[in-house]
This record gives sequence, C-alpha cells and structure tokens, in this order.
Amino acid sequence: MSFFLTPVSIAFILVLLGWIFKSERPGKKTDDESKTKPEYHPWVDEDLKDSTENHQTEDVDEFHESEENLEHVPFSSPRFPEHEMIRRSQEFYELLNQRRSVRFISDEPVPRQVIDNVIKTAGTAPSGAHTEPWSFVVVQDEEVKHKIRVIIEDEEEINYKKRMGDRWVNDLKKLRTNWIKEYLDTAPFLILIFKKIYGITSSGRKKTHYYNEISVSIACGILLAALQNTGLVTVTTTPLNCGPRLRTLLDRPANEKLLMLLPVGYPRKDATVPDLKRKTLEEIMVVV
Amino acid sequence: MSFFLTPVSIAFILVLLGWIFKSERPGKKTDDESKTKPEYHPWVDEDLKDSTENHQTEDVDEFHESEENLEHVPFSSPRFPEHEMIRRSQEFYELLNQRRSVRFISDEPVPRQVIDNVIKTAGTAPSGAHTEPWSFVVVQDEEVKHKIRVIIEDEEEINYKKRMGDRWVNDLKKLRTNWIKEYLDTAPFLILIFKKIYGITSSGRKKTHYYNEISVSIACGILLAALQNTGLVTVTTTPLNCGPRLRTLLDRPANEKLLMLLPVGYPRKDATVPDLKRKTLEEIMVVV
Repeated sequence: MSFFLTPVSIAFILVLLGWIFKSERPGKKTDDESKTKPEYHPWVDEDLKDSTENHQTEDVDEFHESEENLEHVPFSSPRFPEHEMIRRSQEFYELLNQRRSVRFISDEPVPRQVIDNVIKTAGTAPSGAHTEPWSFVVVQDEEVKHKIRVIIEDEEEINYKKRMGDRWVNDLKKLRTNWIKEYLDTAPFLILIFKKIYGITSSGRKKTHYYNEISVSIACGILLAALQNTGLVTVTTTPLNCGPRLRTLLDRPANEKLLMLLPVGYPRKDATVPDLKRKTLEEIMVVV
Repeated sequence: MSFFLTPVSIAFILVLLGWIFKSERPGKKTDDESKTKPEYHPWVDEDLKDSTENHQTEDVDEFHESEENLEHVPFSSPRFPEHEMIRRSQEFYELLNQRRSVRFISDEPVPRQVIDNVIKTAGTAPSGAHTEPWSFVVVQDEEVKHKIRVIIEDEEEINYKKRMGDRWVNDLKKLRTNWIKEYLDTAPFLILIFKKIYGITSSGRKKTHYYNEISVSIACGILLAALQNTGLVTVTTTPLNCGPRLRTLLDRPANEKLLMLLPVGYPRKDATVPDLKRKTLEEIMVVV
C-alpha cells in the first residue's frame, strides 16, 4: 500500500480544486455585484435608517453653512400682544384643521395669480445651506395634463394588479376607483414638485444638496398651508414609479427628481372625503 | 503504481476540503453581515437615489391606502371671491416672506397656549396612509434644555474640529460661534420633532410607516408657517449625530428618530440675520 500520492489521486485533487474554485467564482461575482448595486427597497430602507446616528464630518450643520461668510443685518419682526398671538394661533389652527385631501376637483378655472402667490410662498421655506433645491412645474395645458394622467394611471394599474394578484379580477370596480385619477384631467392646475438632488459648482462639479428631500417637503407643507388659506383644495400624491417618464415629458434636467404632485382647484359640489379623525394634541405632544 | 486513491491521498483530500470550506466561512459570514447591515452614508445615499424610479408592488399610493375602507362624508369648504383669494394669497406670501432663521432668541416667556396651538396646527398635515407619524417634544424645563445644549455642542465641536483639521486652531473664534448654540438655553421652548419610522399592529408586528420623513417634514413646514403667523421666531436645525443621546435623554421609544429641533421664542432686540436673498418666482417655477 503506497503512502504517497498517486498520479490518479493528484489528478483527482486538481480536478476537485478546479471545480471548487470554478463553482466559487460565480458566487463571488454575484456578491460583488450585489455590493455595488444593492437590491433596493425604496421607502423601506429609508424608513428603517436613522439619519441622526451616522457620522458625517464633511457637512456640519448644512442647513446654515452657506451663511457663514455672509454679512449679517439687523432683524426685526412685528410683535403682537399675548392675547393677539393666542387668537392668531387659534384661528390659523381652525383654518388648517379644515384642510382635507380632496380627490373630487372641479374644472372651474382658478386665477393664475393665486398659483403664483402660493408658489412664491412655498419658496420662502428654509433649506439646507440655503440651496432652495426645488422646482415647481405648473401644468395648465390640457394635453400635457392628459399625458400625465395616462402615465400615472398606467403605472398605478400595474401596481394595483401586481399587488392584488387574483383578487383584482373580482374586485375590479373598487380597484378602478383606486387607479383612475380623473382629477388629473379636471383640476385646472397640476403642481409637480421636483427636488434638486445636486447642484453644479462654478468649476462644473456636482455638489450634493444635503437635506434636499426634507427641505422640499417643508416647502410643500408651506404650499399646502398657502393653498388652504385661499380656499382651494388639493391632495398630496406621490406617484409611484412615474418619476422618469414625467421628468422626460416635462423636460426636467437630470438632477431633478419628482417628489410630489398636487392637483389644485375648487372642490366639486358633490365632493366627499373619507371620515378620518385626527390624533388629539395629547397623542402627538409631550411636554418636558 | 496504484490507480486507486490511497488512504493518505484521501486524508489529504479531506484536510484540503476542510481547509477550503473553513477558510470560506468567514468570508461568507462577512458578506452576509454586510448585506444585513450595509455601510451607510447618511444624506448622500438618500439624496442620490430616486425613490420614484423603483418598483414597489406592496404599497400602492400609501398616502391614501388606509382610507379605502372608510365611509365617505360630504366635503364643503368656504369659497372666497377671486379678488379675495388673490388678496389672501398675497398677504400670506408677505407674512411668510418675512420669516427668517433667527439664532438670537430672547429668554422672555411665551404663552404655552400658543405652543399648543401651533403644534395642533402641525398635526393637521397629511401623512402616508394617515399614520400621523410624528411626536412633538416640547422642552421648557431649564435643566433639560441645558442637557440638550451640552449634547448638541459636544457633537458639533467634534464635527467642526474633524472637519476643519489644522485650520480650526487658527480660526477658533469664528468656529466657536458655529458650535456654540446659546439659543438652546435662552429660548423659552425647544420643540424636538421625532418621526415614527414604524408602528405596531394589533398582532404585535412592526408596520413600516411609508413616507414618514416626507410626512413629518410637511408637518414641520406647517409648523413653521404657524409660528411665523404668531410673530415668534425659530431656526430649522438638524442636530448631527445627536439622535440617540437626545432620544435617551427624552425617554422616547425605539421607533422614534429625531428629525428636527426648533428653538422657539421672541427675537432678541439685537438679533441679526445673514443678508440672504431668495430666488425669484421665475427661478423656481415653470408653467406648461
């Protein structure tokens, strides 16, 4: 009995090694690919992370950094007596508390000047490093509105059908009300809000706009308040998967991503809203 | 010469196989770990992604999904004549356009009722699937305010020193004004806004709150408008890396992440603001 490796066993070992490393390769490659292009779950990933817990040494207090080198000027603002402050805050609450998301929008025309004013108001929002990373695309053209509707209903139908699976066939009527968005045709104005995810420096380099999503969402909050103050209605929509097609349709640059779409107009006479309740102050506020 | 595998070569093959698989294990493990805990670059990743371009079949139009099964009720709202709408939108713009981020906040007391009202107003914001994923922590206790200041200045000092490198020694005075945040002590109220990244279902399972960051940011926009309407001032701050320490200090649950901190009060008599200009309507709006 030989104690040495035989040619056959050496050949066997070599084949075995070759097989092991060959079978390893594709696995390794897949891992590498999944590292550079990780599978991406949109809101899920974002929602599970904690942006406040990460170290970031390059960008300190980016909301204000650009102001560091600016000259300061005196600030003054109107001051109300206490009872007046309380009254104003109470009235503003009552006004805003009437706001509801309304999907039944009349086709009656709305003065363009009102739209200009509410967008100017949204543009007063604070933003990271005062980048003002927003674009408001106001669509009044009937044809463009209809093209937007086709794109959004297309994608929504896919979303609903995929999601509902077999159920959708039996539940078609209810579904139709979900993916059919008549207001995209009837509302006299659609406001599409894009966030500018980066800017271009004077030297031609991309400059990330930190906090752009938060900044633009704050501006949208102010826009909703401004609309409510005029008596117009809207509904906050975030069309899924439509960003690239809408960006192309509206000829927006590559650094702009769709954040929100607001159809704006008067409510239809037969408008209804779901019978929702809001949380009480005690449920949303803690005082320390 | 034997053509069969010898005991030695079999033993050699087994040892070889054991070594190969053993040495593979740590690599695999690392890959698994990096998949479940991907290295995370805070705002950068978020800002470079396009949330509208990803397919998501589970969550269709989450902003309104929860309303599907609710009874609808008639909606009515006050309607203003056109000239009144234009006037109201113009006045609201002028009010909001006076808003500035003010870091010089007086220690004069502010009526608590005003704070309650502005937070109730923020709570009227729309949210994904009507989850109302916000908590407003109002801090008026002097000691807690000071502890918050210590935490934030701690982290800011680290941020600034890391960022500035050698330069910081020569530039100490300017730096101090950046990381010293006196308003955290002087402002009669600090409002810390937490986003609830998930809820708990009746069966005890975590339920992701889609669009929670956008929803809470919209609520912050409405809060800023409500504050401005009362004549109080604030500054939008996003304290870096302070989330966990502030969450612990304020005893907030694990599903809440700090989004924003607003110090609120009257402006100091000697308050100044950087001489910023805002973009014009033409720079932020496109009409189609």
